Amino acid sequence: MAPMRIALAQIDTCVGDLEANTEAILAWTRRAAAAGADLVAFPEMTVTGYPIEDLALRASFRRGAEAALQATAARLAAEGLGEVVVVVGTVGEHTSREHAGAPARPTNQAVVLARGAVHERYDKHHLPNYGVFDEYRIFAAGVDPCVLEVKGRRVGLVICEDLWQDGGPVAAMDDAQIELLLVVNASPFEEGKTHQRVELAARRSREVGAPVAYVNMIGGQDDLVFDGGSFVIAAGGALLARAPQFVEHLLVWDLPDAATTTAAPAPAALAPLLDPDEEIYRAVVTGLAGYLHKNGFRSVVLGLSGGIDSALVAAMSADAIGGENVVGVSMPSRYSSDHSKDDAADLAKRLGADYRVQPIKPMVDAFEGELGLEGVAAENLQARVRGMILMALSNAEGHLVLATGNKSELAVGYSTIYGDAVGGYAPLKDVDKSRVWALARWRNNAAVDAGELPPIPESSITKPPSAELRPGQVDQDSLPPYDLLDEVLDAYVEHAEGRAELLARGFDPEVVDRVLALVDRAEWKRRQYPLGPKVTALAFGRDRRLPITTRWREPSAPTQEQVR
Amino acid sequence: MAPMRIALAQIDTCVGDLEANTEAILAWTRRAAAAGADLVAFPEMTVTGYPIEDLALRASFRRGAEAALQATAARLAAEGLGEVVVVVGTVGEHTSREHAGAPARPTNQAVVLARGAVHERYDKHHLPNYGVFDEYRIFAAGVDPCVLEVKGRRVGLVICEDLWQDGGPVAAMDDAQIELLLVVNASPFEEGKTHQRVELAARRSREVGAPVAYVNMIGGQDDLVFDGGSFVIAAGGALLARAPQFVEHLLVWDLPDAATTTAAPAPAALAPLLDPDEEIYRAVVTGLAGYLHKNGFRSVVLGLSGGIDSALVAAMSADAIGGENVVGVSMPSRYSSDHSKDDAADLAKRLGADYRVQPIKPMVDAFEGELGLEGVAAENLQARVRGMILMALSNAEGHLVLATGNKSELAVGYSTIYGDAVGGYAPLKDVDKSRVWALARWRNNAAVDAGELPPIPESSITKPPSAELRPGQVDQDSLPPYDLLDEVLDAYVEHAEGRAELLARGFDPEVVDRVLALVDRAEWKRRQYPLGPKVTALAFGRDRRLPITTRWREPSAPTQEQVR
Repeated sequence: MAPMRIALAQIDTCVGDLEANTEAILAWTRRAAAAGADLVAFPEMTVTGYPIEDLALRASFRRGAEAALQATAARLAAEGLGEVVVVVGTVGEHTSREHAGAPARPTNQAVVLARGAVHERYDKHHLPNYGVFDEYRIFAAGVDPCVLEVKGRRVGLVICEDLWQDGGPVAAMDDAQIELLLVVNASPFEEGKTHQRVELAARRSREVGAPVAYVNMIGGQDDLVFDGGSFVIAAGGALLARAPQFVEHLLVWDLPDAATTTAAPAPAALAPLLDPDEEIYRAVVTGLAGYLHKNGFRSVVLGLSGGIDSALVAAMSADAIGGENVVGVSMPSRYSSDHSKDDAADLAKRLGADYRVQPIKPMVDAFEGELGLEGVAAENLQARVRGMILMALSNAEGHLVLATGNKSELAVGYSTIYGDAVGGYAPLKDVDKSRVWALARWRNNAAVDAGELPPIPESSITKPPSAELRPGQVDQDSLPPYDLLDEVLDAYVEHAEGRAELLARGFDPEVVDRVLALVDRAEWKRRQYPLGPKVTALAFGRDRRLPITTRWREPSAPTQEQVR
Repeated sequence: MAPMRIALAQIDTCVGDLEANTEAILAWTRRAAAAGADLVAFPEMTVTGYPIEDLALRASFRRGAEAALQATAARLAAEGLGEVVVVVGTVGEHTSREHAGAPARPTNQAVVLARGAVHERYDKHHLPNYGVFDEYRIFAAGVDPCVLEVKGRRVGLVICEDLWQDGGPVAAMDDAQIELLLVVNASPFEEGKTHQRVELAARRSREVGAPVAYVNMIGGQDDLVFDGGSFVIAAGGALLARAPQFVEHLLVWDLPDAATTTAAPAPAALAPLLDPDEEIYRAVVTGLAGYLHKNGFRSVVLGLSGGIDSALVAAMSADAIGGENVVGVSMPSRYSSDHSKDDAADLAKRLGADYRVQPIKPMVDAFEGELGLEGVAAENLQARVRGMILMALSNAEGHLVLATGNKSELAVGYSTIYGDAVGGYAPLKDVDKSRVWALARWRNNAAVDAGELPPIPESSITKPPSAELRPGQVDQDSLPPYDLLDEVLDAYVEHAEGRAELLARGFDPEVVDRVLALVDRAEWKRRQYPLGPKVTALAFGRDRRLPITTRWREPSAPTQEQVR
């Protein structure tokens, strides 16, 4: 028996763009056929894009997706590609067997196309509904397993979460005597997940006694980033092939004939793994590029303060859409230092950005003359005038406004609602301040290694961070040192640890109480303004949906009376 | 056998406020005991408040709730209330029987307190995860039914959604030979839901052959409003007692002795049902009052344009927290008409509000002098200067800013991001323009009926609506008539109907295409600015979570080529 050639098409889809997504299915099937593939597999929900959220509940959308799917099957055959078995994902419909006449419910479906028709439909069994996932909300679960016959070989088919759950359709594959387990995925990027996926697939390959082929999507979609990194595991658990991350790619692999299936062939193309800082940097750029492209933006505008956050966002924007499509606006106030203005100009020059200077004094004076503000209201006023200037440029010229706040300062509320929080996308929303510096250094070093000019001025990296909203202000007047702050934030916000757990880990009680009070107050401020800066961008870590109103606080330090 | 006296404590809890919620349990148990009750039942998740969203996933929060529960049981006994059986809701923990050492998962739990201890724990079986509900996301489902013995009578206990689903714990109650089915609820207000609840409970009472006692919470919590309306149904389905909506209330009812349980006693206290406009008006005021109170605000600030939306929001605010705590700011521009300014002043006077006038010309001139804006950018600038003035007053004086946009204009994008959309709460977010007029008329008529001055100037109700951002502008320059617009929006947005369904209902194709294009564009604009005006307030209808990026559109009208 000849080997069966498998092609994993790691592509970038767009939610709702049925036309572009099905065109991509055709284009990549042509490439796979040219490479001699018998079977080509696409990521989860290829036709519709992923995640479609409550669009799944709109019947006219489901009708549109089904029509696009049928047309694709017909076009494949008409182009002479009917002999290639094509596995794509789409939204299906579940019609209740028990309740005749009940409205159909959407399913997360994988479909097998061949010879101009739809041959099999597999509905995902396990519907993740935690973190960033809401599939139980929108989909009905499938109940039947799916085993295809391709060139006389038995191929088990499951979708993403089906692989992660013990039992279920994967456990049934052992009895089904499959020769290959094919998993189609839309698995969002998280730090360290590359290893988790491979380890899990290796375990499953041993459980079912067959190789595992894992295809993932790539690209930015809303607040998610998909990293690709599709791979193939031998029946014994050895990694045989791996696609690169963050690019579209066709990974081709031959399933050996039945007699040698259990022997581990020599590894073929293993794309190198990325350095952790490079991986995060490219994830952010991929997310930003996808957001801009899929929403029809060709340019961005942002305020350049001379500080590290706006410098890093500008460099990432230049990498995403080209420096010539970045508009950087220096908006100095009476408190802005000369070195800030110089660093902003230097940055823009290095990136080839459109650089403008717009002092805020005339507008600030007009507001202060009318309203007579002081303290925080006066500080916020400066940030809000800057936000209005950026929005006016956006309205007049069509750029997307980028907010430059990082995860640490958003967590502790070191930000002005309707001020520096203004923007359609916040690239650093999931990047803490310690990592901001690390990414800036990585980017500059990468430029040096490539013989290019480092994009970020060295003084933006080395000087003490300051909001420059009053004379001599620096961040550390109000906040603990960032390395310490970021450690406490990681435990309290990301890992939901309580005060007791934080103290048990050895953090200074004074620092813990100070940070917890800042975070709780910042969350409360955000809750007051739900119409305001809802921060929705990349989600590297867990996505926590908290109530708007809550009076619950971590138990505070015992008072002297209680201690006595 | 003597009758058993049941008290349903329809109270207002606050998410996370363990201290206030348990104090309320004590206070209302005292009242129930004074009324001779043997059993007092509180709403779903009384101790923690509802909905707690991802707070459920924080172990230190669960420990805090459990400590508060145990303390409450002890305090009840210490006060001599140990003989009263008290049913309260809280967050429980599910420890896996299959996976030793797996972390505990939260449950939605009802607990029975008596004689200083916790006697029973029932975990909700059916976890709603549609519309505004996300319970499957955060809770593990219960599997065991719960039947209490109180004074020798068998009382079946279920939680909210358990009643709505066929099968499950309610179906098991028939075999359990219960004499009363007790349902504890946190059921959000929706138009028409009062009737649905009673009909459902009547059906269940016939299925289990026992009366049904239904207790619901009241009050505003985040983007939800709970209306109360607790009730008792006889075994045969007859309505026996009903609490009023939108107020805390103790509904007391005697379960007849066993011999007469199936006979329908004469109806006792049936609180009158509300007129539909009054019901909506009071739902909005309840939501606003709860949001202000639970977030610690004592006053609000809003722009008064002289138009109907801001007039209605001001009147509702006065009803929620008193006119003296409402700051109304007239912010005239060169395009503001004299009647607008007069109507705003008249309104403030009627409400006893703090009225201020702040012309926007100096700030608008400063921006225009620097930036030279025209068209939409110039129109938006006026709205944004107003938003900044309101936020400056909020920062300086501590008021919550209210956004006054209604559902119709938000749906079609007739609103400025960071301009009139600025605010922490949008009371009319789920009220369409047709209903805005109806509510204003209802409120004025109610005043006349009570012999009071109508709060809203008649001319604000009767004049054609205008944004007054350019000379002579009226809404109908850009939008279809509101009564027609609201009908199309209801079908397209609320009921997710497609273009084909809308045409089949007889709507003019030109109007349909125009409205669909407006809505799709407005959603797209909102998606571009996820950091901007996320609209989160009352949810009368379905809550739809749509993807940020989607290119899918309703199929548009066929072109001439296609028709030929």
